[in-house]
Amino acid sequence: MTQVDSSPVETSTGAGTRQEGGCAEGRGKVGVVLLNLGGPERIQDVGPFLYNLFADPEIIRLPTPALQKPLAWLISTLRSGKSREAYRSIGGGSPLRRITEQQARELQSVLRQRGLEATTYVAMRYWHPFTESAVSDMKADGIHEVVVLPLYPHFSISTSGSSFRELQRLRQSDPDFAHLPIRCIRSYYDHPGYVNAMAGLIERQVAACPDPASAHVFFSAHGVPKSYVEEAGDPYQQEIEACAALIMDRLAERLGHRNPFTLAYQSRVGPVEWLKPYTDEALHELGEQGVKDLVVVPISFVSEHIETLEEIDIEYREIATESGITNFRRVPALDIDPTFISGLADLVQQSMAGPEVNLDQAAALSTTVKLYPQDKWAWGWNNSSEVWNGRLAMVGFSAFLLELLSGRGPLHAIGLL
Amino acid sequence: MTQVDSSPVETSTGAGTRQEGGCAEGRGKVGVVLLNLGGPERIQDVGPFLYNLFADPEIIRLPTPALQKPLAWLISTLRSGKSREAYRSIGGGSPLRRITEQQARELQSVLRQRGLEATTYVAMRYWHPFTESAVSDMKADGIHEVVVLPLYPHFSISTSGSSFRELQRLRQSDPDFAHLPIRCIRSYYDHPGYVNAMAGLIERQVAACPDPASAHVFFSAHGVPKSYVEEAGDPYQQEIEACAALIMDRLAERLGHRNPFTLAYQSRVGPVEWLKPYTDEALHELGEQGVKDLVVVPISFVSEHIETLEEIDIEYREIATESGITNFRRVPALDIDPTFISGLADLVQQSMAGPEVNLDQAAALSTTVKLYPQDKWAWGWNNSSEVWNGRLAMVGFSAFLLELLSGRGPLHAIGLL
Repeated sequence: MTQVDSSPVETSTGAGTRQEGGCAEGRGKVGVVLLNLGGPERIQDVGPFLYNLFADPEIIRLPTPALQKPLAWLISTLRSGKSREAYRSIGGGSPLRRITEQQARELQSVLRQRGLEATTYVAMRYWHPFTESAVSDMKADGIHEVVVLPLYPHFSISTSGSSFRELQRLRQSDPDFAHLPIRCIRSYYDHPGYVNAMAGLIERQVAACPDPASAHVFFSAHGVPKSYVEEAGDPYQQEIEACAALIMDRLAERLGHRNPFTLAYQSRVGPVEWLKPYTDEALHELGEQGVKDLVVVPISFVSEHIETLEEIDIEYREIATESGITNFRRVPALDIDPTFISGLADLVQQSMAGPEVNLDQAAALSTTVKLYPQDKWAWGWNNSSEVWNGRLAMVGFSAFLLELLSGRGPLHAIGLL
Repeated sequence: MTQVDSSPVETSTGAGTRQEGGCAEGRGKVGVVLLNLGGPERIQDVGPFLYNLFADPEIIRLPTPALQKPLAWLISTLRSGKSREAYRSIGGGSPLRRITEQQARELQSVLRQRGLEATTYVAMRYWHPFTESAVSDMKADGIHEVVVLPLYPHFSISTSGSSFRELQRLRQSDPDFAHLPIRCIRSYYDHPGYVNAMAGLIERQVAACPDPASAHVFFSAHGVPKSYVEEAGDPYQQEIEACAALIMDRLAERLGHRNPFTLAYQSRVGPVEWLKPYTDEALHELGEQGVKDLVVVPISFVSEHIETLEEIDIEYREIATESGITNFRRVPALDIDPTFISGLADLVQQSMAGPEVNLDQAAALSTTVKLYPQDKWAWGWNNSSEVWNGRLAMVGFSAFLLELLSGRGPLHAIGLL
């Protein structure tokens, strides 16, 4: 009889070794999947990264799906020059993979110190390590249940939503993954760990101002088209606004005084209206009002990336200086801030104490907004996701067409068109 | 005065946190760079991976460098279909990134248990995470000195050699990296840790045979063109042969008897002669000689990959079965075998106890072989590397042309042409 003594699966996984950790809290091994965008690490990766971004129907949806890839190729080819320049100005690539892996290591340490046999996995949406790698690693490690934790505190269709849907696609095509219990954390903009960590970082910059009580706190969130919120039901704006208010309350408790603050949205808007006020316009206004000490808070991402290191630190700083703001202090992103990491661990444990929350539930949108006919674009999993697709198709495609025709808009502003 | 309080470098690295580990053994923080090939993890990555492989002048060198990329594009486009099929048969992608990261984690643990403040980094040659990521991570972590450890126990121009040269290119263009002291481990085919680990894995399979004393041990090494060895001075064959003999000695000590053994080289050869005997022909011969119990040892790689999981486990097993070998037992790759990992830690410590060994020294070739005129292909760092380039250009390009014209050869055999 012919034997193959060591099967591919056995020999390639090292599962035997990893299994020895056993099960804590009377349940199986937990895989915690950290979702993020991903970013090109080498200049030659910028083009392929942009291609992946524009090939995502959650970013641009075409009525004819066959055109999606050629268009993604066209845009990424045309625009990679300008985008490469931006990445060159921050050292030749995005630090997002490195920072996200550090966050994953720190979170895993905290969870294990708390007695949970958890392993963390990084799943990027548009660059390596992709979501597929996280799924194949979890299978190789013999994970028994999954917690999905977006590194986006605020839910948006185009960030957490797109990643949830990517994971759902992989689950549908992979029975081994599909049978694992799953708990998705939708957002955590109001969680004490996150809010405290943000307040702590801001406090240090405010305290360093000549007159801390009058320092102006300036939240700059990544913008989205207004139609995402008003027509597709994206809760992003509501969560950002509530979050800024909570952070300001917490900051006042820590400082003993209330500082003035502004919330604005990054990325300029051409013919398509994005959430307002826009960061550049708000900076001009504050300068005109005589604000000198500005504490700038990147609120919508938790890691340093091109939008903080290039857009805020270089572009917006220049605008602020021109507007007469003489003391421009940028609050660092959370990265591996211990209060933040500990808050993420709380979220994982709270999620595990509750019922399963599947990817459909995590990506669900409010039904109190306008609806469009969906049949042309429907490709989704179930009724609710078809609604989602239909809305997204309408707002994404019309915004894109307008921008393409007018030659102005958010994609131009961030150097992608 | 305008201030940017948190500079990009400070906020993006988390260096402050990582620095706290301090310096063990009175020296700085050590970065251990593990070199490997890399492999596509998703079916859609197979084409781009092949492109990177063929764009490497250490794999195919063209007299006109401008043709390198178009040719790489052509071959990768034409051949990705067949290669994708092979990856599909082993689960849709290569497990090499996952296994290499496990090896890195285990090695780091052992080194830290021994009191060394070492951090391990994975640097792949043809796929993510690329060598650039390892270098940028080391800089972010504030590493003070570097040890380079190929996950190829035997030196070859096309494996360790190509990776050493890639690292050298990065060092030349990056002063921060260039100033770090570096110690390169060239090969370790005769190191007791590696030899013992191999003998241990083989022993288990031999002992499981009906008559252990008569089981035939079959080493299958990855082949290279004969001209690499005889004309370019690649020490690969000599190191493989010495290694097999050492492992057989160690195995005899453990078992108390000497088993018969064969050494052969994977990948069929057309017009260009590769190292002999070829694995498929050797299997036929052993079958004809009446061998029934075969213990197959993948000797040249230390991790499961397409050449073990697909080529040996599927293709060669079929040939063996057809040839009358009824008991085909494949020895697993070392992966995270504790004896192997401990041996790697010994190698790192021995290297650190010795003088610096730079990348030129690690990639040096013997000068006792034929030389070709090099001026046309010279692009290297110094005299010795120009010799290297010239030799490689001749053997690589002539082999490739022959195969392209004849339609038969090693690249066809492994599904790449």
